[in-house]
Formats: sequence, structure tokens, C-alpha cells
Amino acid sequence: MSILDNISSPKDLKGLSYSDLDILADELRNKILDTVSNNGGHLASNLGIVETTIAIHRIFNSPEDQIVLDVGHQSYVHKLLTGRQREFDTLRQWEGLSGFTNRQESIYDPFGAGHSGTSISAALGLATANQLNGKQNYVIAVVGDGSFTNGMIYEALNNCTKNNLKLIIILNDNEMSISENVGGLSKYLSRIRTSEKYFSLKHKIQMFFHKIPLVGDHLVSTTRKLKKRIKKRVMNENLFENLGLDYLGPIEGGKIKKLETVLREAKDKNKCCLVHVHTVKGKGYKPAEDNPEIYHSVGAFDLKSGVDATKKSISFSSVFGDILCREAAHNQSICAITAAMTSGTGLNEFRENYPQRFYDVGIAEEHAVTFGAGLSANQKTPVCAIYSTFTQRVYDQLIHDVAIQKLPMIMALDRCGLVPGDGITHQGIYDCSYLASIPGIEIFSPETYAEMDQSFNHAFYHNGLVVIRYPKGMELEYNRSKYKSLGGLSYLDFSTAPYEVAIITYGRITKNAYDAIKLLNNAGHIRLIKLVKVYPLDFEKIFSLIEGVRVIYILEEGIKSGGIAEKLASEFAQNDMMHTKKILIRAIENPLMEQGDLASLYASCGFQPEQIAAEIKDLMKNN
Amino acid sequence: MSILDNISSPKDLKGLSYSDLDILADELRNKILDTVSNNGGHLASNLGIVETTIAIHRIFNSPEDQIVLDVGHQSYVHKLLTGRQREFDTLRQWEGLSGFTNRQESIYDPFGAGHSGTSISAALGLATANQLNGKQNYVIAVVGDGSFTNGMIYEALNNCTKNNLKLIIILNDNEMSISENVGGLSKYLSRIRTSEKYFSLKHKIQMFFHKIPLVGDHLVSTTRKLKKRIKKRVMNENLFENLGLDYLGPIEGGKIKKLETVLREAKDKNKCCLVHVHTVKGKGYKPAEDNPEIYHSVGAFDLKSGVDATKKSISFSSVFGDILCREAAHNQSICAITAAMTSGTGLNEFRENYPQRFYDVGIAEEHAVTFGAGLSANQKTPVCAIYSTFTQRVYDQLIHDVAIQKLPMIMALDRCGLVPGDGITHQGIYDCSYLASIPGIEIFSPETYAEMDQSFNHAFYHNGLVVIRYPKGMELEYNRSKYKSLGGLSYLDFSTAPYEVAIITYGRITKNAYDAIKLLNNAGHIRLIKLVKVYPLDFEKIFSLIEGVRVIYILEEGIKSGGIAEKLASEFAQNDMMHTKKILIRAIENPLMEQGDLASLYASCGFQPEQIAAEIKDLMKNN
Repeated sequence: MSILDNISSPKDLKGLSYSDLDILADELRNKILDTVSNNGGHLASNLGIVETTIAIHRIFNSPEDQIVLDVGHQSYVHKLLTGRQREFDTLRQWEGLSGFTNRQESIYDPFGAGHSGTSISAALGLATANQLNGKQNYVIAVVGDGSFTNGMIYEALNNCTKNNLKLIIILNDNEMSISENVGGLSKYLSRIRTSEKYFSLKHKIQMFFHKIPLVGDHLVSTTRKLKKRIKKRVMNENLFENLGLDYLGPIEGGKIKKLETVLREAKDKNKCCLVHVHTVKGKGYKPAEDNPEIYHSVGAFDLKSGVDATKKSISFSSVFGDILCREAAHNQSICAITAAMTSGTGLNEFRENYPQRFYDVGIAEEHAVTFGAGLSANQKTPVCAIYSTFTQRVYDQLIHDVAIQKLPMIMALDRCGLVPGDGITHQGIYDCSYLASIPGIEIFSPETYAEMDQSFNHAFYHNGLVVIRYPKGMELEYNRSKYKSLGGLSYLDFSTAPYEVAIITYGRITKNAYDAIKLLNNAGHIRLIKLVKVYPLDFEKIFSLIEGVRVIYILEEGIKSGGIAEKLASEFAQNDMMHTKKILIRAIENPLMEQGDLASLYASCGFQPEQIAAEIKDLMKNN
Repeated sequence: MSILDNISSPKDLKGLSYSDLDILADELRNKILDTVSNNGGHLASNLGIVETTIAIHRIFNSPEDQIVLDVGHQSYVHKLLTGRQREFDTLRQWEGLSGFTNRQESIYDPFGAGHSGTSISAALGLATANQLNGKQNYVIAVVGDGSFTNGMIYEALNNCTKNNLKLIIILNDNEMSISENVGGLSKYLSRIRTSEKYFSLKHKIQMFFHKIPLVGDHLVSTTRKLKKRIKKRVMNENLFENLGLDYLGPIEGGKIKKLETVLREAKDKNKCCLVHVHTVKGKGYKPAEDNPEIYHSVGAFDLKSGVDATKKSISFSSVFGDILCREAAHNQSICAITAAMTSGTGLNEFRENYPQRFYDVGIAEEHAVTFGAGLSANQKTPVCAIYSTFTQRVYDQLIHDVAIQKLPMIMALDRCGLVPGDGITHQGIYDCSYLASIPGIEIFSPETYAEMDQSFNHAFYHNGLVVIRYPKGMELEYNRSKYKSLGGLSYLDFSTAPYEVAIITYGRITKNAYDAIKLLNNAGHIRLIKLVKVYPLDFEKIFSLIEGVRVIYILEEGIKSGGIAEKLASEFAQNDMMHTKKILIRAIENPLMEQGDLASLYASCGFQPEQIAAEIKDLMKNN
């Protein structure tokens, strides 16, 4: 029986010897490697934070002391030490463990997160509530250096200056965002790390100053040394101290005993303290240490051979990258912006080919969009590639900086629709709803690479804000040869006129509608209408295509409230189309969907072809 | 003829003597005082930045060099110096000058803003585009210290480290956000300012170190002094230098010549430089210098007697403050959060009575909401008071940190609906649309103080996210005695059954519907349905109230796309209500509305009672 097997709660860590803890660290790494290589998930950051997590759980008393993990990319060790090791092989699976922290999952997760930069704000809230409630417990926020490229962190730090807050911030500095970390702060942290032992040197210099009047003869040379050291900027306050925090570090993240000493010291401060821990992303698995970016987030892979990064698979992301490179070759105005997602959004090649026109701004979506708006104001064509879920962060910037100034800009939205493995915090199901409220916006939702290409070709030369949204993964296969295009939408007739049923849908889920119709086996005359431009809608064309049908069935892989389906139904009502027709909307009514395989998520939404077919059959019978 | 009269573009500034410039500064102040005391507007920040704006326009060549003003609260001097002085008396009026910078208004406004924290991102975009386009022009971002409480500023600073960027950031430090500035950075800036002359002292110390070997006898005492000075933290890099920027300052903002010297120095740097200017909010008008918060944003007032701050007028904001104080008196869990809008949101009294449960977090809406979620997770009841337009910034936090974690929280949304004076950047017309897509949310839009009270009483004890939205100003007066309440909505019958027309509306604009019906003078049987809870809708009740009507007219002071009206129409269609009914939605189709009086804005939307009456008459005739 392993040591890990005996850890049923963090309390079980407290009696272990340091040599046992080293063994435990190895067991944790192996468990994570085994599970992630099977299920996929976030690997490198979890391998890096093993010892730090152990030390935290030994010095603090969770769940009374509350640990808030920023983004949750580093939550696996925490899960394994807080009673979830027996379910750990269900990680990221339907009805299994979430890949992130999750309040619903465990009392050891006081605050969930899948988006970056929220931890200090949340921890400050928890700690402030404790103070108001007269509780003496600590709140610990663990934040990667990547999240320090996100503005919320500074908004929170600026508010952490109250006295006697039992709040400790652990800066988990692995020199990485998701890709290599970018910007001024990252360089600054690197300077702190390389200035040898900032922390102890500072102590020494303080001692030296106390002794100065006694030194006598050696004073001149000592002062010279002092001068040199001061030039290395080791004496003074650092950036975090400037902002009113106490600072301890940098500390090597691999040494449990040392970490414990510093964490104990942090507990004794009477104000918010930032502990700077230097960790190694991917630690303990050579391929991940060598290529932490590739091993940040992985699908299933073979542990022995590692992830084959040379194997290129075609996907909407890669096709987007190709389209952008092709356009940039002859269109000098094209600029690409990513918020720490170069690889995820398919921009690796663009970065290589057009480094002067490529901007990885860090996990800073707000800045990304407003920076893009600035580029646009001086005649560039910014293409901002962000996942659907993170685009939620720039709703205001899209209105305030782009739309109302009528600046041309392209948003390439990846990971739209249901996002299986990442689950509730990453579902790309809101975008059509919130984006359609932005003045002058156009939204395209291609089902195929060809439609994606057409959409971008339009967007590159359109004088306004265009969003092109697409799912993770590949174009789905089925016979599309009989679609008739009407520009912005196309339709597929499964029999001859007159049609009884019109199905209206868009994007990836169109195939589910197609499969459903096949299952119905020509039980009725059905027309499938596929929208490519989903907003604003070309109602004249749609009206002409549904003329005479008895039943309209709208299928939407997005939330119902404010979605495209509601807009269609509302417009039908306003245009007196509903006097004799029945309409049914099948969209996402419960957006709070956890992780799982796509089929399970689809089934829970009523999106499987059999479910759609049954529903349509029923409608045809009763209307 | 005044000196100002002769300034038709910034070029005319360049030949003036410093004594002429001092006269000009006085003229500018008088012009601003005259206009703002008539039209209302942002006073104190504009009075403070007179000399700085003159210096900028003398050292740089606008419009080729581009000046980006953060938030635009300080844009009046800039407007007066860039050819807009003759229209200046139309400030904030219908078809007049905007109170903010605006690309549509002038080529001297390269980037507009009404929300805080966007300037450096935008300026970096403009400067980067210049670099790509081979242009040698400068971009100057002018940012108040208040905006440094906003996270976007740090996201942008983190990306300003590229070499040879012709980007200069002017930190306009007037020690104020809108209220007194808060947090660690504000204290830090104050420490820089009070460390005498940071800038020159730094130079002196550098010189001193060069001389050390020559000093001889006096070394011990000099080293003591040095020690003292180092303790004052003046030698080392400061926070902005930590982040990779050059830093110049602090400079007194009232001295044009000195400002020019430093701005010239900033031009010669080969990287992004931050110039720290210390200004005095309200300068030159004693009441504003003494009470800059009161004079930040004002309505019309008498210049001689000043704003009477003791005069309390009842408004939705003040009633909200009263409700919250009353509840907090017996409910210990209530906490109030504002993002630098204590006075604007009616929280002054709460701040006085419950300082331990009051949090002004700075202009940091994202942090405000996630901090609130943290409070909520530890059993507090956070009430976050933010204007509708700024709530656009927290769409993601509301989903990610509040809604999907099912944490109870109250959002008090002020300035909902059309916002006359501030115009396009401040319209509170999107909130119903984007908020209704958030899982589990409830949205209330009271028309009266009594309905507001009921809504909050529900929210204080509701286990979820509740938004209560209300307009600027007072409850409107008309005879409401005959409304019949159905809980969450009420209705007013203007004749006996059967009803031909149902008007459905909510919030302040209900009075316009009422007035329209009066104008129709019982031309038909009309039922007025007023929603208080606007999301989710109680369709059963609404269905029962519209049974038998021929015409449904929905009136919404909000954008049409995704609004409450679309939801109603869509639901009517899905429930087979539209077989014999006609429906018309009168909502905001063009959200890009500039400043103006409310009547003009209403007229442009078709919201005036006469317009509504005519439309209904027409509908009744033709259906």
C-alpha cells in the first residue's frame, strides 16, 4: 500500500517524515501522469506544484483554512490530497471529477475557477468575510505567474492592504503562462529570481547598515560593494511591497521543509503577504520539463513515447491559422492577437512567419481587444483569436472600444459550443446570445472549413466588427453535395415540395439534424436550413424557405435565452408568420453542464439524433 | 479679443509667450466654469489639467501625434484647444459636443472613451500601428491616477516594453479617483510625491556614488544620510521601472515650462516612458479645490454660490442607499461594494454608518464582483452597486464567479436606460439583453420606489443572483392607484373588457405608455401591463392577461436584440399565441445614441407618447 493510499484528508500529511513526503511526491506525480495520459488534462503545471501543495496542506488546516487555486490548472495534487484520490481516474469524464476546482465537488474547494486571475479577488472576499465573522482562519490564494498578466490580479492586489487580513498569496512562478510568459512583469520576476537570494541578501544588507558606524577602515570598499548590490536592486522595496504587501521569496518550490518555514513566517505577518515560489513546470517527467507548453494541456497520450508534437492534425484552429497566414502574405494590414493561446488557437505558424505582426499579450483579453481597436484606428486589420468562453471578458471592450467607434476588427472565436473535457467553466454556449446585442456586429458560424474560409474572406474586407465562431476539433463528415447555397445560409431538401417541416440550425450540430432526418427515413417532407451568418439574420430568405411548412424546429448548440432561435421565433411572430405554424426551439436550457464526453453532453441537452428525430415525429403527428 | 479666441488649432499655441500662456490658462478655466455651470459636466478634473494639456499640445504635433485621454473626464481643455471652442457651449447637448473624446467629432480625438482604463491599450495599438506603417509620430496616453486602480492599465503596461515604441504615458496624478483614490497604488504614489523630489534626488544620489572614493572624512556621516535616503526608497527602480518602463517625475502639473522640459526628455527615450504629473483637481475654483468629489461631475449650478451639497434630493440612488442602510441595521450579513462611485450610487450614508461592511474597490468592476462572490461564499450578502454601462465589464465574472457557483449576490444597477448627458459610452440600454443570458439570474426593473423596495426585500433573502435595475433620477409622477398587482407584474385597465390592445412595458418608460393611452382618449379598449420582474418572465400570468387581445405592443427602453420584448414575442410564438394576434416591438434599434436631453433621445427612438399613440392607433386600424 502506497503512502498516497493512506492520505484520506490533509490531516494525514501532518505526521509524515520528510523522506516519506519525498516518496509521496513521487507517487503523486505517477498518479497524475497515469491519469492524464489516459484522460487528457492539464499536466505540466500539476507536476510542478506537487511539493508546494504538500507544504501548504501541512502548514494550513484545510478546509477551515481555505485554499483558492487560480484557474485550477494546478488543482490535481490538491484533489489527490483532499479525499478525491479514489475517484481520480474519472477526471474530466461524465459524472466524474472536474479538471478544475469546483465548490459542488468538495468542501476543500471554497471557490471554483476555470478562468484566470480571479483567485486573489475571491480570496480577499473569503478573508474579509472571515474577519467580519470573527474567524481566525487563513485564506491562501495560489496564483501562477501567467495570471499576473491579467488585470484582475492588480485590481485585487490594490485592495489587499487592510491590516490583519489573514490572506496569503502564493505566486507560483514557473516562468510560464500557458505558453512562455510575456511582458514586463515576467522579465521582472526573472530578474528577482536571478538576483541570487533576494530575500536573504536583503536581511544581510539590513544588518550591515546597523553595523556601519563600527566598521572603520573597511568602509570605503564595503560601500563600494554596497553600491554594487544596490545597483542590483536588492535593498529596496520590490513591486509587491510598493503595492503595500509583505513579500517573502523567491523560494525554491521543490523543497518542502524550506517552503514550510517560509509559509510559517507568512502566517505570522499581520498583513497580506505574497510568497514567491519558484517551481518547474512539468517537473519529474522529462518530456514535459523540456516542452512545458506542449504538456500544458494534453489529450490522451503514450507515457513512454510522449506527445508527438510533429503530428499535425487538421482542425478548425489549424485551418484558421492557415487562412490567416495566406491572407497576411499579401495583405500587410493583417495583425494577429492572442491572449496566451498561440498554440491553442492555431497561430504557431503565423507567429513564425509574421513575428512583427503577431502579439501574444498574456492572459489579458480586455487589453487584447482594446489594443486591437487601437491598431484598427490606425488602419491595421486586427484578428483577435480568443476562445468563446474567454471572450465573455471583453463584452464591454467590444461595445465601448470597437463597436461604438465603428472600428473594423475580426474576432476568431475558438472552442464554441459544448466543450466536453473542461466542462462548466469553459462551455462556449453564451457567445451568440451576448454578442448579438453589440451594435453593428456580424456573427458567422461556419459548419465547414470552406464556409470558414468564405467567412474570413468576407471579414478581411468588411468595414466593421465581425465574429467568426467555430468549435474545437474537426469538420464533421457527411454528404453535403446537395446543399443549395443562398449566400449566408444554405438548405438541403430531403424530398420534393411541399415541405411540412423546416429545421433551422447552424454550426457543428447541423450534422445531428441531418442524422435525425435520415433516421426519420422520409417519414415527412423535410427541409434543412443551415445558417452560416447567424447575425444579423437574412429574414427575407428565411421567410421564403419556410413558406407553407407546418412545423418549424430550431436546433441551437447554445443557450436558449437571447440565442439565435429566440430571435427567429420573435421575428416570425412580428411578421405574422405564426398564424398556422407550430414552432419548437431545442437549445440549451440548463447551461450548468459539467465535464463529460460530447455524446453525454448532447444527450443531456436532447441533441442526439434519435432525440431530435423523436421530437420532430411527435411534432408532425400533433400539428 | 481673448487669447483663446485666436487658438483655432494647437499650432497657434506654439508662438505664445509663457506669460500669454498663463493668461490663456485663466481663460480656459473661465470658459470651462461658465459652460459647465450652465450645462453640467465634469468640472474638477478639467480644471486640474489645464497647464498639462497646454504643454502637451505645445511639445507634440496633434493630430499627427495622437493624444488618447483615459475616460475623457479631462477632455474639455483639449477640445477648446483643438478647434472646438466655438461649439463649446453645446457641450453635452443634443447634436452638440460630447462630454468625452469621440472619433466622430474630431480628428484630434484618435480614440474615444467614457469608460476607464482603456487608454494605454488603445495608445499601444496606435503606436504599434505607426511602427508597422513606418510613421515617426508619437502617441500620448493621458491617464488619471484613479484609472490605475483598473486592471486593464496593468495588462497594457505589461505589454509596453517593446523598444522604439513612440509611446508616452502621462500619469495625471490628482490624488483622486472619482472619490478619494483607494488602495495600495494610491498610497505608493503619495509616497513618491512626498519623498520631495524623487526625480532630482535620484540624479543627485547617482552623482554621489560616482564621487564616493573622493569624499574622505565626511564619509561616515554621508553614509548615514545615504542610509536615510535609501530608506526613503528613492534610489532604486520604482514600480513602473520594475515593469520595464522609463519613468520621469513627479512633476508639478501647474508649471508649463517645466512640463515642457520633461516632455521633451520623454520624447528622446527609445522606449515607452511614463511621465508622472502631479495636478490639483478643481484648480482655480476654490469650492472645487476644497471638495473635488462634489465637483467631479455636476449638474447646472450657480458659480457664485457653488453646488449646495447639503441639499438632498430623493432619487432612485438615494432610495437604494436608504433601503440598504435600513436592512443592514438588522441584517449583519449585508455588505456594500462600489467601484469608485460611493456618492453616485447613493452609498454615502452606508459608508458612514457601516464602514466595516463598505468597500470602495476603485475603478475595478471585475474585482468588485469576484470579491463579492468571495464574501458570498463565506455567508455574507454582497450588494454590488454599479452603473448599468460599467456592469458590461463584469459579464464573465457574473457567469464564472457568481452564477455557475450558485452564489447569492445582489447587483444594484444604477443609470439604466437612456443616459442623456453622458451619451453614447454611457447608455444603460444593453443590460436586460446580456444579463438575461446568465444562468439562474433574476432581473427586476422597478418603476417606483415602492417596487424597488419590494424587489430588494426579495433579493436580500433570495438564494441566487438578483439584479435590480433603475434609472438616474426620480420616480415619475402619475396616478397609479388603479394598477392591479399580480406579483412580479401589474396591470392597468383603461376600460372594460374585452380588450383589443395589450401594451407590455417596464421601468421608467411605463409613464410614456400611460401618457400615450391617455392621448388615445379611450379610442379602444387597452390594457397596460407593467413588468417588475423582467426575467425570468411569468408567462402564465402574461398569457392570461393578453387572452383575446388583437394587438400586442411591447415598449422597451433598451436594445431590441436579445431584449425582454424579443423574449416575449418568441415565447408567444412557441405557445401558439400568435394565430390571431398582431405584435409590434418598439425598442431601441440604433443603440449608437450620442448625448442630449431625454426628450430628444426618446423622440429619436419613437418613445414619445405622441409617437406611441400614433403607432397604436395605426395598429388598431389595420389589424
